[in-house]
Amino acid sequence: MKLNTNYDKLQNSYLFVEIANRVKKYTAENPAADIIRLGIGDVTRPLAPCVVEAGLKAMSEMGKAETFRGYSPDSQGYDFLRNAISAYYASFGVKVGAEEVHVSDGAKSDCGNIVDMFDADNTVLIPDPVYPVYFDSNIMSGRKVIFCDATEENDFAPLPDDNTDCDIIYLCSPNNPTGSAYTFAQLKKWVDFANARGAIIIYDAAYEAFVTDPDVPRSIFAVDGARTCAVELCSFSKTAGFTGTRCGYTVVPNELCGGRLAKMWARRQSTKFNGTSYIQQRMAEAAYSEEGIKQNLENIRAYQKNAKLISDTFAEMGIYHTGGKNSPYIWLKCNGDSWDFFDKLLTQANVVGTPGSGFGKNGEGFFRLTAFNTYEKTEEAMRRIKKVLS
Amino acid sequence: MKLNTNYDKLQNSYLFVEIANRVKKYTAENPAADIIRLGIGDVTRPLAPCVVEAGLKAMSEMGKAETFRGYSPDSQGYDFLRNAISAYYASFGVKVGAEEVHVSDGAKSDCGNIVDMFDADNTVLIPDPVYPVYFDSNIMSGRKVIFCDATEENDFAPLPDDNTDCDIIYLCSPNNPTGSAYTFAQLKKWVDFANARGAIIIYDAAYEAFVTDPDVPRSIFAVDGARTCAVELCSFSKTAGFTGTRCGYTVVPNELCGGRLAKMWARRQSTKFNGTSYIQQRMAEAAYSEEGIKQNLENIRAYQKNAKLISDTFAEMGIYHTGGKNSPYIWLKCNGDSWDFFDKLLTQANVVGTPGSGFGKNGEGFFRLTAFNTYEKTEEAMRRIKKVLS
Repeated sequence: MKLNTNYDKLQNSYLFVEIANRVKKYTAENPAADIIRLGIGDVTRPLAPCVVEAGLKAMSEMGKAETFRGYSPDSQGYDFLRNAISAYYASFGVKVGAEEVHVSDGAKSDCGNIVDMFDADNTVLIPDPVYPVYFDSNIMSGRKVIFCDATEENDFAPLPDDNTDCDIIYLCSPNNPTGSAYTFAQLKKWVDFANARGAIIIYDAAYEAFVTDPDVPRSIFAVDGARTCAVELCSFSKTAGFTGTRCGYTVVPNELCGGRLAKMWARRQSTKFNGTSYIQQRMAEAAYSEEGIKQNLENIRAYQKNAKLISDTFAEMGIYHTGGKNSPYIWLKCNGDSWDFFDKLLTQANVVGTPGSGFGKNGEGFFRLTAFNTYEKTEEAMRRIKKVLS
Repeated sequence: MKLNTNYDKLQNSYLFVEIANRVKKYTAENPAADIIRLGIGDVTRPLAPCVVEAGLKAMSEMGKAETFRGYSPDSQGYDFLRNAISAYYASFGVKVGAEEVHVSDGAKSDCGNIVDMFDADNTVLIPDPVYPVYFDSNIMSGRKVIFCDATEENDFAPLPDDNTDCDIIYLCSPNNPTGSAYTFAQLKKWVDFANARGAIIIYDAAYEAFVTDPDVPRSIFAVDGARTCAVELCSFSKTAGFTGTRCGYTVVPNELCGGRLAKMWARRQSTKFNGTSYIQQRMAEAAYSEEGIKQNLENIRAYQKNAKLISDTFAEMGIYHTGGKNSPYIWLKCNGDSWDFFDKLLTQANVVGTPGSGFGKNGEGFFRLTAFNTYEKTEEAMRRIKKVLS
């Protein structure tokens, strides 16, 4: 039996392991240190009350013969949730049919599995710095990957270059890790570029709930022409705190590839996936109810307040950064080696962030902070960082 | 952009659609008919009380800041569940290390995704009749598939033929759809065959909880030599009624491929999957607690009672069949076209089953009934079938 040797080409991801090791070593040597973590991209606020309530109800239904649910009738999701997601899109003016929504256990799964739809002989274009899953999932299946540079020059929002030959394009906006977000006009350039060459855009909209700027679309389908060139991945993780609950969805427009892609994705999911739990689907439905959106907005507003505080702090110090607005991430210029800056913040401010170099070569000299801690801890972290950097 | 044209080689699975259509047409014409469904492989009894209790508790934890859980620390599963699964194996004398257990959202996902580990250039051996996912997932990734015949001659438990050239072997025991189950001695023949040629066995143990015969192993790892040639897929779906709850696991022994496969699978799962929900993991932990095993056994005993009733009915009529023992499935010889027999049972007994031909060419002339309805309905179905067939 021959193993898939593409796996040998993967680099081990030491980023978060290395961070953990350095923090562990430091705290062992300095047990009294009060470490503040602004490194991870995980939410910290509990699920919204109406989501928990819906979950408790669904859980109880599963314990009674009359209301028990077995396999879901459609592995793409229950109608009640697909309709709720369609209505959610409509609430910000984007038309997505319920039948175009494919519910899953999370956007990461969809992001990893969507590559199954494409031949190995395609060239993949990925911005650098990048969320590693885009790169790794294509290496695993043997595709050629090229990069486009996200840098200070383009405010970490690179635009297409007509001379680039590519078939599959990954875009994430608002971006992880840089927090930058495309405007309608910028995203339109990518849509036109993709349509002109028959390329497909895999659009990661996981952070759409953080968008506040009216110039920034919350979905690629808010842009004319996107329905013939894009699929969109989205998640309840950041919108509704589902990182440990697991539910996401992918939108595949009817028009895409003459309808072939939607059929292929449905076939993939019904063959290699058995639907998302009924319990999570009821929780997700509640998250997109009027009450749920209101309750979740409170959490998002809290994270946005932290993001603004971080962004304002660096603006005040005259330090170049992206994000903070439209995003829970702040991506700042650290003028020097990312890991040196990491060590400096860890040892002098007892604040943990993420070295930008861990996200690709263009991340060197940059550093990511996240808005997912409490306001009090974020405030204290900013006080310490100001002291260290001034 | 080039699509994955392997998908064009897939046949649409019309089996359950065709069944639904025929039942719909019949009930439209005969609205008074009291249809009994013994067709689907889905459980009907509610989740065990202690599983629901654990689920409610976990759900409540997710609603409080102090106990909220985000991304799971390890995408292969929480230690509490991996330990519980390891202990479950130990309870029937099989040694599986907690670190060899990879928790997922269900065995179907693992079954579909495990093929990512292997080069496209491998020959896959699958018994016919077959659970379609084994076949489809390999066609999707462009592998050559050959079949070995499960027939009345080998009691639908085919053994290896030394002249067969293959690299990847699928075995499901107790089997879906035939209900046949390998003995230790038979399974040992497959293990030796695989080890002799460096092939790998993908062993589907989803129905292990139905095993009652001491001669039938509940895990391939109960067989000497399996740790160097097999991975095992298992599920809480049939053991604990999780078909709509979603949790499963795959065991990859440390020894396999010199440790490479376990590392590759962990890498795949951490890249293309973000772990199973904390809530489901707590529910699964409860299902494998002492109390949970006891409570779930009550459900399994109920299904087994149905299975025995069906099996005894056909034995009494002198009709050849496999399963019923060690399995919730009864696979019976219908002497003629499977679909004709389907129509006969539907129209004359108002009982719905599954035509064997839907599972492969060797299924023609056979028919599957399942034990997942209530005892009363199963009893009534048997009364009617006896009347029609005698």
